[in-house]
Amino acid sequence: MLRSHTCGELRSSDIDKKVTLSGWVQKSRDLGGMTFVDLRDRYGITQLVFNPDWDKTLSEQARQLSREFVIQITGTVIERESKNKNHVTGDIEIKVETLKILNESITPPFTIEDETDGGDELRMKYRYLDLRRSIVRKNLELRHRLALETRNFLDKLNFIEVETPVLIKSTPEGARDFVVPSRMHSGQFYALPQSPQTFKQLLMVSGFDRYYQIVKCFRDEDLRADRQPEFTQIDCEMSFIEQEDILNTFEGLVKHLFKSVKNIDIPKMPHMTYADAMKNYGNDKPDVRFEMKFVELNDVVKGKEFKVFNDAKLVVGICAKGAAEYTRKQLDELTEFVKRPQIGATGLVYARYNSDGTLKSSVDKFYNEEELKKWAAAFNAQPGDLMLVLAGDEDKTRKALSELRLEMGNRLGLRDKNKFSCLWVVDFPLLEWNEGDPNLLESLRGRWVAKHHPFTSPKPEDIDLLKKDPGNVRANAYDMVINGVEVGGGSIRIHNKNLQATMFEVLGFTKEEAQKQFGFLMNAFEFGAPPHGGIAFGFDRLCSLFGGADGIRDFIAFPKNNAGKDVMIDSPSEISQEQLKELGLRL
Amino acid sequence: MLRSHTCGELRSSDIDKKVTLSGWVQKSRDLGGMTFVDLRDRYGITQLVFNPDWDKTLSEQARQLSREFVIQITGTVIERESKNKNHVTGDIEIKVETLKILNESITPPFTIEDETDGGDELRMKYRYLDLRRSIVRKNLELRHRLALETRNFLDKLNFIEVETPVLIKSTPEGARDFVVPSRMHSGQFYALPQSPQTFKQLLMVSGFDRYYQIVKCFRDEDLRADRQPEFTQIDCEMSFIEQEDILNTFEGLVKHLFKSVKNIDIPKMPHMTYADAMKNYGNDKPDVRFEMKFVELNDVVKGKEFKVFNDAKLVVGICAKGAAEYTRKQLDELTEFVKRPQIGATGLVYARYNSDGTLKSSVDKFYNEEELKKWAAAFNAQPGDLMLVLAGDEDKTRKALSELRLEMGNRLGLRDKNKFSCLWVVDFPLLEWNEGDPNLLESLRGRWVAKHHPFTSPKPEDIDLLKKDPGNVRANAYDMVINGVEVGGGSIRIHNKNLQATMFEVLGFTKEEAQKQFGFLMNAFEFGAPPHGGIAFGFDRLCSLFGGADGIRDFIAFPKNNAGKDVMIDSPSEISQEQLKELGLRL
Repeated sequence: MLRSHTCGELRSSDIDKKVTLSGWVQKSRDLGGMTFVDLRDRYGITQLVFNPDWDKTLSEQARQLSREFVIQITGTVIERESKNKNHVTGDIEIKVETLKILNESITPPFTIEDETDGGDELRMKYRYLDLRRSIVRKNLELRHRLALETRNFLDKLNFIEVETPVLIKSTPEGARDFVVPSRMHSGQFYALPQSPQTFKQLLMVSGFDRYYQIVKCFRDEDLRADRQPEFTQIDCEMSFIEQEDILNTFEGLVKHLFKSVKNIDIPKMPHMTYADAMKNYGNDKPDVRFEMKFVELNDVVKGKEFKVFNDAKLVVGICAKGAAEYTRKQLDELTEFVKRPQIGATGLVYARYNSDGTLKSSVDKFYNEEELKKWAAAFNAQPGDLMLVLAGDEDKTRKALSELRLEMGNRLGLRDKNKFSCLWVVDFPLLEWNEGDPNLLESLRGRWVAKHHPFTSPKPEDIDLLKKDPGNVRANAYDMVINGVEVGGGSIRIHNKNLQATMFEVLGFTKEEAQKQFGFLMNAFEFGAPPHGGIAFGFDRLCSLFGGADGIRDFIAFPKNNAGKDVMIDSPSEISQEQLKELGLRL
Repeated sequence: MLRSHTCGELRSSDIDKKVTLSGWVQKSRDLGGMTFVDLRDRYGITQLVFNPDWDKTLSEQARQLSREFVIQITGTVIERESKNKNHVTGDIEIKVETLKILNESITPPFTIEDETDGGDELRMKYRYLDLRRSIVRKNLELRHRLALETRNFLDKLNFIEVETPVLIKSTPEGARDFVVPSRMHSGQFYALPQSPQTFKQLLMVSGFDRYYQIVKCFRDEDLRADRQPEFTQIDCEMSFIEQEDILNTFEGLVKHLFKSVKNIDIPKMPHMTYADAMKNYGNDKPDVRFEMKFVELNDVVKGKEFKVFNDAKLVVGICAKGAAEYTRKQLDELTEFVKRPQIGATGLVYARYNSDGTLKSSVDKFYNEEELKKWAAAFNAQPGDLMLVLAGDEDKTRKALSELRLEMGNRLGLRDKNKFSCLWVVDFPLLEWNEGDPNLLESLRGRWVAKHHPFTSPKPEDIDLLKKDPGNVRANAYDMVINGVEVGGGSIRIHNKNLQATMFEVLGFTKEEAQKQFGFLMNAFEFGAPPHGGIAFGFDRLCSLFGGADGIRDFIAFPKNNAGKDVMIDSPSEISQEQLKELGLRL
């Protein structure tokens, strides 16, 4: 080893020891005579001291050290005069006796500090330097810890990790596949898995009983912010279970992660139906760190002279506690917020319940104080509260109000990143109508597509509706939602060949297409498939949630940018004619 | 849960308990009145009893159960009259009270037993049924256990697992890459990693200090038997270390795996140079479960009238202890063995040291008993031994004798799968001349290629030879060899930009090519790269070794066949014109 100790290891109890340390020069201070160098490695920072009175040549050498030089020193641990409480090694320093430069460094393009001066693109290009910042490295240490805790927890419950293949078959029933041309079978392609879904189901058919895998998945989407073409799932499946068993097991996993990694006790997670989530929060992944439920006002506000409300299918609002003092400017900002194209409301109505008990609204012309009292009653508002109301089409209005609710949560400081509110959303619809999702192939437009995936089982009592009224079939599907983020989702699967065939039929597959793409699974169902179900957690997202961050990118060692490019290695890139020819491809 | 207990759980102490079990019908025996059903799940087999005296209808139903039906029963645990010592549940059986068929099964195409009647292709097609066989499932359970033990062991040593990207850049310096066309960047491609080599080195530059990953890698090779286009590595890297540190650390890992998984104590692993391995075993991965070292005979046999030996560059042999009694037929078989085209010797000379002390050879015409005594002395042979001698070119003869040595090891029962002999082979050559390896691109023919990879450091004392005599440069490279299998290999890496540039030059890269393909790494070396090195274990191979098997295929859940095809899902396969068009590709 080129060291006897790490830079985070030495304490007062080590004083007088001869040690060898290796690491990076974090910074160097030249105090006329003495030179102090902060030596950094993954484990911490240790102060080195060079004194010309001890060794003039060595002290001269030390003056030449620049940031990020890699050095090895030997020396003696001594007590530090002015202790530094910011470092665990702050009680000691090293009186250096020998110095060896292991590698030099040119000046980094940005500072290697928690607060860096490097912009996003620059940090992506020099990712290996960005990863030196302890703030980023700690994210990846957290990720490692979460993965290992997950594995050990599931192992104890008899889950076994099974690696499923990465080179599989293109089945573009959902998002687009990345494909891999085969050289040995010219004109044919493998595909990269969007999830190991069919394989984990086959493992259940095989009797593996309890499977998990922390696994890379791939989706060729037009990337939105914070999506990655390759991402990681905690993928799980169980046999001989009912929905409650899955929820209990994986609630247990997440509670264990919170407890073991963050020492937080998470209470029993409530269950909320999809219908209630949409009704009360306009969102299938409600952030329930704060209440601020939707209040429907059709009965309260209709029938006055206010055409906007009278014409609206839905008038619905939220009550922002203690926000009655909002200024005109703040209210204008909120109006602008809901009118942004991506939210699309036509306007915002507000009513202040002033602390003196009076009521004042933006629609005083149509609603007198008596009427506003009725609003307040509906909202269960108190003096000091602000009522915010939107009106319009059902779905669009709920969606817009959901955004407004989250915005108000932010403004009122109700979305504390150190507080975690977890719940299960259950009873999702089985299907949704694809009008023209740009992430799906064009050939899927104007069809019913699976909300979760084509292997999700309908609720037994809704099976009759499959052909009559597909949109109203509920699924045995569930999501775990934490702080408004869907961290995991799953379902009880179909394990009956005929029901699976019906499902493909509803999704517009011909018998031949279904057989060609998923014949192996339907055939497997003929040989004794057990009842089974599972869940997959978005691991990148889970890590960022645990890390208290908004984005996933700094929880991935080498992420791609929003254009799907790795700017550090410059990928994707052209390949040689020789390679193209061998693959039988032309551009 | 659709069960209160698993099929491997109930014991005498559970007698009189009411239980619910679910599983597969392994077999059913109809003894006139009573019906006995073996119910199977991952955890074991439990016997169910149906008796028409207890319930006539139920007993009738039980008679209809066929192999691989999935059922759920409730009943009472009772003591078994004739105990079955083959099952841990053999002391009890279940008096069944209710029976529910959860799913039916058609007759499987082969028997789900340890000894199956299914051929290879059939079992690959119905892999999900093959995986039901406990012998195959146990392999994957072993794999899971090895992976988890590896992770926990390395975690304790401060290694952190970091996921490196799967969509990277094509750098076909070694074997061929699988490539992935980019839809968003038409005409450009990602590549799948042959290993995370450059990324783990960047992590060292980032100060991650100790990295590991159990990771899928990909190589587009013309598949030989027992190679897979996707395979799994335990990939590791450390900073601030020397070669001895890597060897000690990972010797520790493998010892831990043997101890924790198989309860075997592995002694300190000897180190053998590549030169010694080639000289003594003709092989850089010698099987040292048995001695039978090469003995060079040039000095002993040359100068007689035997032209074959006189003309040969090398005359070399092995001494097979106790094989003097081999019959003429057995010796003919050995001659045929070495003359097979893949071995390519021209003939085999033998000399028997009979137990009566006389000597008899296939070349008595040229060597009298006095001469053969000299042979025996060289071999240190004893009465009862058989000396086998080959002659010809150096390399080819050593290689052929290596094969013969292994064959003799097999024939003499010296290669016990339950005995494990581990060693390190060190000081590999840095480079080798590529005459025309079919797994490399044609453009690499007639060039020096890296024996390990282009990032391996030469021994400091050999750097001078890099341009003068590349073939004689030794590398800081090492392999772990167990029972003649290379289970892992690695090296101390280059961490100096100039040396790395020289290496690319020796490998025939122009400066521009090197910069284009590996510029990111060489740039990274300018910012303070620490000394570092690592190792990668072939995880599939390690599992099969621990499982006492020859092939890796049954240690992979869903392997591909020798043509790189997954015959179960029928992949690779054609993709739609719509997909091709979106990718900007033509066939």
